[in-house]
Amino acid sequence: MTGAGGDRGELRGLSLNQATVKNLTLEQAVGLCLRHEIPAIGLWRDRVAELGLARAAAAVRASGLHVSSLCRGGFFTHADPGARAAALADNRAAVAEAAELGADVLVLVCGGLVPGSRDLGLARRMVADAVAELVPVAERLGVRLGVEALHPMFCADRCVLSRLGDAVDLARRFPAEAVGVVVDTYHVWWDSQLAGQIAAARGRIACFQLADWVEPLPADALLGRGHLGDGRIDLAQITAQVVAAGYRGWAEVEIFSRPVWDAPPDDTAATVRRRFAELLGAGPGR
Amino acid sequence: MTGAGGDRGELRGLSLNQATVKNLTLEQAVGLCLRHEIPAIGLWRDRVAELGLARAAAAVRASGLHVSSLCRGGFFTHADPGARAAALADNRAAVAEAAELGADVLVLVCGGLVPGSRDLGLARRMVADAVAELVPVAERLGVRLGVEALHPMFCADRCVLSRLGDAVDLARRFPAEAVGVVVDTYHVWWDSQLAGQIAAARGRIACFQLADWVEPLPADALLGRGHLGDGRIDLAQITAQVVAAGYRGWAEVEIFSRPVWDAPPDDTAATVRRRFAELLGAGPGR
Repeated sequence: MTGAGGDRGELRGLSLNQATVKNLTLEQAVGLCLRHEIPAIGLWRDRVAELGLARAAAAVRASGLHVSSLCRGGFFTHADPGARAAALADNRAAVAEAAELGADVLVLVCGGLVPGSRDLGLARRMVADAVAELVPVAERLGVRLGVEALHPMFCADRCVLSRLGDAVDLARRFPAEAVGVVVDTYHVWWDSQLAGQIAAARGRIACFQLADWVEPLPADALLGRGHLGDGRIDLAQITAQVVAAGYRGWAEVEIFSRPVWDAPPDDTAATVRRRFAELLGAGPGR
Repeated sequence: MTGAGGDRGELRGLSLNQATVKNLTLEQAVGLCLRHEIPAIGLWRDRVAELGLARAAAAVRASGLHVSSLCRGGFFTHADPGARAAALADNRAAVAEAAELGADVLVLVCGGLVPGSRDLGLARRMVADAVAELVPVAERLGVRLGVEALHPMFCADRCVLSRLGDAVDLARRFPAEAVGVVVDTYHVWWDSQLAGQIAAARGRIACFQLADWVEPLPADALLGRGHLGDGRIDLAQITAQVVAAGYRGWAEVEIFSRPVWDAPPDDTAATVRRRFAELLGAGPGR
């Protein structure tokens, strides 16, 4: 394990996002991180709820792990006012959970096209309105919202913000301490203007997530990710750009992948740690 | 059938891309267009080669159908010089075929990341160099090259130009009559800045292809297309933007889809014609 920040390119260190070991409970995932000396974890709300918020928060605090993110809020785009209100209520609850867990950021996957509509502009306005309603709640509880751009293949059904720049444009309408952006390599790597968008995100990068793009895309495109180095993304370059934009937080490894989920979790954690070190010339941090 | 261009939003009319009826030979596809009074066709090189270039050209000429495109050239990104030379030779042949067939444009799918490389910039430079080599050939034979931007989910394996703007930037290095761009709704619909990119493509739009985005994405993401109106793309709006940018050519319906391929071709042609009219308020043209 290295001590100097420079060895990690000034990132604070490695975090394991729970989605990488989807079959584990929160307590099991925490135990895995401790066994493998991974100092931070990205949590998911379903696993938090399974254990209960208070017990989850206590378990993470007791472990000494840093909580680099809580995944996730969002899905704001509804035609039905009742569904819209329900989504906002759920997001307010998510903000409270993030506060209780001490998470650096609440990740927002903002929602796809409005059901029955083909109007991208309408969906994007609906997202902006919902974030505006959420900001006072986040500010009151001291939680930072992280707007994530998702790969354009998810534009119809998951997120109408398809480029990092779309997320930055939205975040900029609000105070930087309340709303930042999530840079996820899997979603944004293909963009010919990515470098400029990362630079423009200076002061707004709330979370940095890493996964590789493996070929071919599997039947469920959500699961087309692989261990760092197994795919086609120049992860070292994107990481350098994120660091050059002033980001000093955690690097979360978040891999949605059937083969990774089917592997023994200790093997997965060991691979995550080794690949992070190999690719980024970095130890797991402190 | 309408006569006035205004009824078709000033498009010249409907063209059936052969890929929509993939199981048909060239002669069968030509016959299908004639039966359904579809006045133009987009051809594919494999079906041209199957019949032989001279016979294919004669068959199309005899039919009176307009050839709105020949698909396709490209795949320029190779590490091996021999492979690069072979790709260029094949593209020179494709230009000659397009000339012989009287096609409006030779569609270029430019290639993904260079094998063994994660360098998007390298791949994009390789594409630009190859197009530069091809331009004199195209100019000599009076063929227009159409650079197509493909959906970012194909960036690694098929095309490193992921946004219409990427294609426009490349095309602009060359005379407009030699190099244009292909606007394919399936590939570019998700882009928050699409309207501006279409406007910036004025004078460069060499081909306009239509397919809808259907959910969920199938196992082979290439095949996630549907009949106009069956999916989530605002095709009328994009068509209006393309027309507003001065495009007066054909609208090709190009649907890669297992269910569409498995349907009786006469049903497919009838649906293509009906949907084109319904969605675009347009007859098939003359």
